[in-house]
Amino acid sequence: MKKFYISKSRRLRSTPFSSRIEKQGLTAYTIYNHMLLPAAFEGTEKEYFHLKEDVQVWDVAAERQVQIIGKDSAKLVQLMTCRNLSKSKVRRCYYAPIVDEKGKMINDPIILKLNENNWWISLADSDVKLYAQGLASGLKLQVEISEPNVNILAVQGPKSFKLMEKIFGKKITELKFFGFDYFNFKGNKFFIARSGWSKQGGYEIYVENTEEGLNLYDELFLAGKEFNVKPGCPNLIERIESGLLSCGNDFDNDDNPYECGFDQYIDIQSDINYLGKKSLIKIAKEGIKRKLMGVKIDLDKIEMMDELTLQNDKNIIGYLRSAAYSPHFKKVVGIAMIKREYWDKKTAFELEINGKKSKGSVCDLPLV
Amino acid sequence: MKKFYISKSRRLRSTPFSSRIEKQGLTAYTIYNHMLLPAAFEGTEKEYFHLKEDVQVWDVAAERQVQIIGKDSAKLVQLMTCRNLSKSKVRRCYYAPIVDEKGKMINDPIILKLNENNWWISLADSDVKLYAQGLASGLKLQVEISEPNVNILAVQGPKSFKLMEKIFGKKITELKFFGFDYFNFKGNKFFIARSGWSKQGGYEIYVENTEEGLNLYDELFLAGKEFNVKPGCPNLIERIESGLLSCGNDFDNDDNPYECGFDQYIDIQSDINYLGKKSLIKIAKEGIKRKLMGVKIDLDKIEMMDELTLQNDKNIIGYLRSAAYSPHFKKVVGIAMIKREYWDKKTAFELEINGKKSKGSVCDLPLV
Repeated sequence: MKKFYISKSRRLRSTPFSSRIEKQGLTAYTIYNHMLLPAAFEGTEKEYFHLKEDVQVWDVAAERQVQIIGKDSAKLVQLMTCRNLSKSKVRRCYYAPIVDEKGKMINDPIILKLNENNWWISLADSDVKLYAQGLASGLKLQVEISEPNVNILAVQGPKSFKLMEKIFGKKITELKFFGFDYFNFKGNKFFIARSGWSKQGGYEIYVENTEEGLNLYDELFLAGKEFNVKPGCPNLIERIESGLLSCGNDFDNDDNPYECGFDQYIDIQSDINYLGKKSLIKIAKEGIKRKLMGVKIDLDKIEMMDELTLQNDKNIIGYLRSAAYSPHFKKVVGIAMIKREYWDKKTAFELEINGKKSKGSVCDLPLV
Repeated sequence: MKKFYISKSRRLRSTPFSSRIEKQGLTAYTIYNHMLLPAAFEGTEKEYFHLKEDVQVWDVAAERQVQIIGKDSAKLVQLMTCRNLSKSKVRRCYYAPIVDEKGKMINDPIILKLNENNWWISLADSDVKLYAQGLASGLKLQVEISEPNVNILAVQGPKSFKLMEKIFGKKITELKFFGFDYFNFKGNKFFIARSGWSKQGGYEIYVENTEEGLNLYDELFLAGKEFNVKPGCPNLIERIESGLLSCGNDFDNDDNPYECGFDQYIDIQSDINYLGKKSLIKIAKEGIKRKLMGVKIDLDKIEMMDELTLQNDKNIIGYLRSAAYSPHFKKVVGIAMIKREYWDKKTAFELEINGKKSKGSVCDLPLV
């Protein structure tokens, strides 16, 4: 497939780490929240094996934070998500669908509770800050909404634990999944969560002071030599195999959280108040007509820029939204929106690309 | 400067014209409203001369529309902009700053009034739809907000009038600047405005039916042969010379519309109701401390990815935000946020890039 350059400008914001990453073998970017997000170094397959075996440092500053501070902050955060946050705890992360009044998906961020009156929404790719501002103005809420200068470095892969222990000490290995706390390096405090957009284990460092963050960045590569550390980025193959959904790729504002399989993050029982609640109650009652599932396809490569139709005889069974060749399954694996009639596992289908038909079958997420 | 590829995926949405444009010599993309926006073909300077002499067809589908329909639509549109729309007319376009409650810039779209209860906001690069949804939910407004399947083709350049007349007939040459109407081609109606993001004259075709749009696209190139038509895209040199501001490049959510020179689009006198009004009244009273101005710099090339500091002796006089070499001025020209003390035309400054200092001076916008 023909490749195109990215035309840089101030509007596609650089991160504090861009100039370093670019000297470390970066070949491609994507854009995420109006910011450069590294997308390729040595190639997705090589990076996949490395991520599963060693440790990578990712410049994911493009995961921007919406900071909501003030007396009505908890109320505003809850208004935007269908996940019940009434029992949420300080220093914990919550994966939470952001929905609109129709119960459709706007974003699938991690919500971090810094204290009762200070929340960060760590975003996928859409301007949730504008949604929050609109709501706050409309309802005259007492909140301050901003995008703080916070730039995330993810440290991912099985050896991330050894590397982070070497830099931050034993205490960091005791951090529980989706917990966060402050840790010291050379007298500076870093906000670190045990999280990240892979299932290979690791941490996300929310860098608040750029200079200190750059020193830490360099230390990660210095201290990481013995663990074969490399720069990396979210990996398409790994995240599809792991069933990690991508906002904008796998779902968008035409899909609801039930269709995305987010059932465990939807509260329609309790008395919490959020915008899409009425709509989601109705959707739950009626039942959904399609949902995201895994697929496996007899192909040894694929490149996707748009959703592709999956057919069974002459019937459309669904639409493929993300896909990559998996060295593990030795097939193309993908995430597709599948119609209700075809949810039975192993439903067979055909996919036509450039006039060539391939066979595939439906399966669960995450793929096994 | 090192170049990087763009990593495509469904999230960076293709337009109906992408596959055609890619076969017509496209080399680079940018991303705008989560969509591919062509950014380079033969090179910005060659394209600049061609745009000023002949006619270009631009795939600017990335200028997405927010459609606001319903009883409260006029109220909601007015709430978001500081421009007084109370006397706005049907079938007219209005360049209008969208501001938040603090009076800071969110977007600088063209607002199109289709009728009293149907408005399109033709966007620069931010999710104004989410701002509108938040406001509508918070205020319980009776509106339907959507992003319709509308994809803009711009026809720009001095020969655009001849080309459009050839296809749509004499009537289209009577369309006034910033007016729009429906015009026929092969029995199909097209929504066309006399507008576009250049000062070389032309039209924007709001394609509502994709198939009919693709036929029109092909016809534009067929009928345009005699006018030396070429594919193009918004031109950095031309738009800086013409003083057309770029949201995200020249200003962002830290700037207010007075600082952007949008004074004529700010109403703080009448009794209209919009969100940033109190803040803008206060700003007007106190006076601004900086504003966007033109600059000329003694350089024969420049590449910008971030704002650059402009200094006069040891004082920072402002920040350069966009710049390009202008064959007309035989210098680099740019748009910069200049501090009040240095607004005097011809204020001299120095710009340091990679340790090399160049001389420049402040001037008005548009550049003369």
